[in-house]
Amino acid sequence: MVEGLRILRGSPPRLGRFSAVYAIASTRTSTIPGISVAGPSPEATLLTPGLDAEYLLLGRPASFDVVPVTPEGLPTPALLTRACLRLLGAAPLVIDCGSHLEPRIPRAVLPSRAVGGRIDSEQALPSGSSRRLFEEARLLGSFLGGSSELVLVGESMPGGTTTAMALLRALGHRARVSSASKKNPVGLKEAVVARALSRLGGSEDVFQINDSVGDPLHISIAGLALGALEAGARVILAGGTQMAAVLAIAKRLGKDLSGVHVITTRWVVADSTADLEGMVAEIAPKAGLAYIDVDLSRSRHKGLRMYEEGFVKEGVGAGGTCGLALLAGRGPSEILAEAEREYEAVLGGA
Amino acid sequence: MVEGLRILRGSPPRLGRFSAVYAIASTRTSTIPGISVAGPSPEATLLTPGLDAEYLLLGRPASFDVVPVTPEGLPTPALLTRACLRLLGAAPLVIDCGSHLEPRIPRAVLPSRAVGGRIDSEQALPSGSSRRLFEEARLLGSFLGGSSELVLVGESMPGGTTTAMALLRALGHRARVSSASKKNPVGLKEAVVARALSRLGGSEDVFQINDSVGDPLHISIAGLALGALEAGARVILAGGTQMAAVLAIAKRLGKDLSGVHVITTRWVVADSTADLEGMVAEIAPKAGLAYIDVDLSRSRHKGLRMYEEGFVKEGVGAGGTCGLALLAGRGPSEILAEAEREYEAVLGGA
Repeated sequence: MVEGLRILRGSPPRLGRFSAVYAIASTRTSTIPGISVAGPSPEATLLTPGLDAEYLLLGRPASFDVVPVTPEGLPTPALLTRACLRLLGAAPLVIDCGSHLEPRIPRAVLPSRAVGGRIDSEQALPSGSSRRLFEEARLLGSFLGGSSELVLVGESMPGGTTTAMALLRALGHRARVSSASKKNPVGLKEAVVARALSRLGGSEDVFQINDSVGDPLHISIAGLALGALEAGARVILAGGTQMAAVLAIAKRLGKDLSGVHVITTRWVVADSTADLEGMVAEIAPKAGLAYIDVDLSRSRHKGLRMYEEGFVKEGVGAGGTCGLALLAGRGPSEILAEAEREYEAVLGGA
Repeated sequence: MVEGLRILRGSPPRLGRFSAVYAIASTRTSTIPGISVAGPSPEATLLTPGLDAEYLLLGRPASFDVVPVTPEGLPTPALLTRACLRLLGAAPLVIDCGSHLEPRIPRAVLPSRAVGGRIDSEQALPSGSSRRLFEEARLLGSFLGGSSELVLVGESMPGGTTTAMALLRALGHRARVSSASKKNPVGLKEAVVARALSRLGGSEDVFQINDSVGDPLHISIAGLALGALEAGARVILAGGTQMAAVLAIAKRLGKDLSGVHVITTRWVVADSTADLEGMVAEIAPKAGLAYIDVDLSRSRHKGLRMYEEGFVKEGVGAGGTCGLALLAGRGPSEILAEAEREYEAVLGGA
């Protein structure tokens, strides 16, 4: 038993030498008004992945002098990620799969990276891109999985639960996804997904499906994860309900997912509009699933306490990275204290 | 004792989980006629790092339908590297520090990457670039050194022994560098270096020195190596006399180099115009030094036998990567057989 880590399925992965990588991409789906709160305005959500990446590596944004916030001013969950990386003494690697803003940091890039289209009205990616992104990511995953025993993959892509819903539905699965908003705009997401799926012919090919109604991120994470598994590593998918779409892609490709663990936050698991546990059980019964039970309600900062009210919930690998810190023996109270220090460094004492 | 690996200084690094990375960059110094044979023509040497990188990852070039060759038609030493990576079952990571040709592969990039200037007549890099490249590379090195126990860094940059000579001299060391040519153009290199050094004021600052007479590669490799060491990994500098310039940069920065091993080929060590052993002993007495003793004279391919006559000698981490294969228990005859298979796949039975 690990304090602060709750196991829903499987047993938690053994730690060992690990790589913590964070895939970033943009989809214009996030600019549909009301879909995403991962930025101060719908258009600004396109900048969030690049700014998240800069903040994660440097502790401050480099391209603009702002840390990504929700319209309510809540800071990016990358704050929790960065706090836990510091507890772990680990440096992250950002992997650009199609970020609108190129972050000014050392990073990995996929040559076929591209910003995804607005799936309610346009093709997600140029024809053939999804297969290329998958193969490119898989090569990078082979490197990562050969270099370390455990590869954690987080993500930042506003609009991601909506494209994940489209992918899950197109691949024949239940699609009950969460939201960074306190009030999940399920009706709007359903409408966007319905319009996307109406453009989809009867194709069963996961790459064609993703070119049509997906995005650059989930297919790339699937490639990274499978490449790392093939190279002999264990994999943590550090994210919420979006990771169900990654599992669904891998399943359609016929891959065994027994080396994979999804680690997320309590706030995603507690979201009654979503069902991560049910989706993992349906799609990948051999995959592990756990969440971090870190209580922010006693924080001295309102911006952190509001996570306990259902704002933000997850992102930039926050749950999985905190999970790694817990597996490494750091306690929930240490994580809270480090998150508060980070909050103060980024936002002052607000 | 490891068959095929000859230890000159220190004891060889323990293997364990490793990362094999290859830094690439271009310097217009390579276009000075007579300086570099790492390409079919002086101008074409600018393309070699990008093509080497594509070949290393994909087994074939992607941007053009050619594998880099010398004017005599000898193939890139990346052939040996690729053969040994296959024996190791390892996938490489390419790190672009300023390649003229952007390779079409998943890769890491440094945001301040830039093609270096012709040091006989122009500044090597825009003012301030060297410090930025170093810090960016160091961040990436921290990731690599945290993820694995051993980080091998190879390189591809035609003209590199000339800029290495300028750096070594500017940093106050003897500068007896090797060459990919059978006949080392020492006189021409000395003339280029003299012109470069005449532009150098009395600065003792390694970053200013590198901005003026260096290149984007060596400073980046120094950052990668020091970042990896700081994160607790051991480091193999996989290259010839250029790696003495990397050691000299690290030494000027006051870093302890006891976790570093230089591993190269017998052809570099046997080059009477160069003195890698003497330079390592002078600059970094705590660093290890070894070379691979793999005999290509019995190859059925002339292109490989000619390595034994002093052509090519080293590059793209050939020596160090073969050294890893030897440390992993693969014998010299296995390396020869795998190199022949690779030669046939790339060039046919010539």
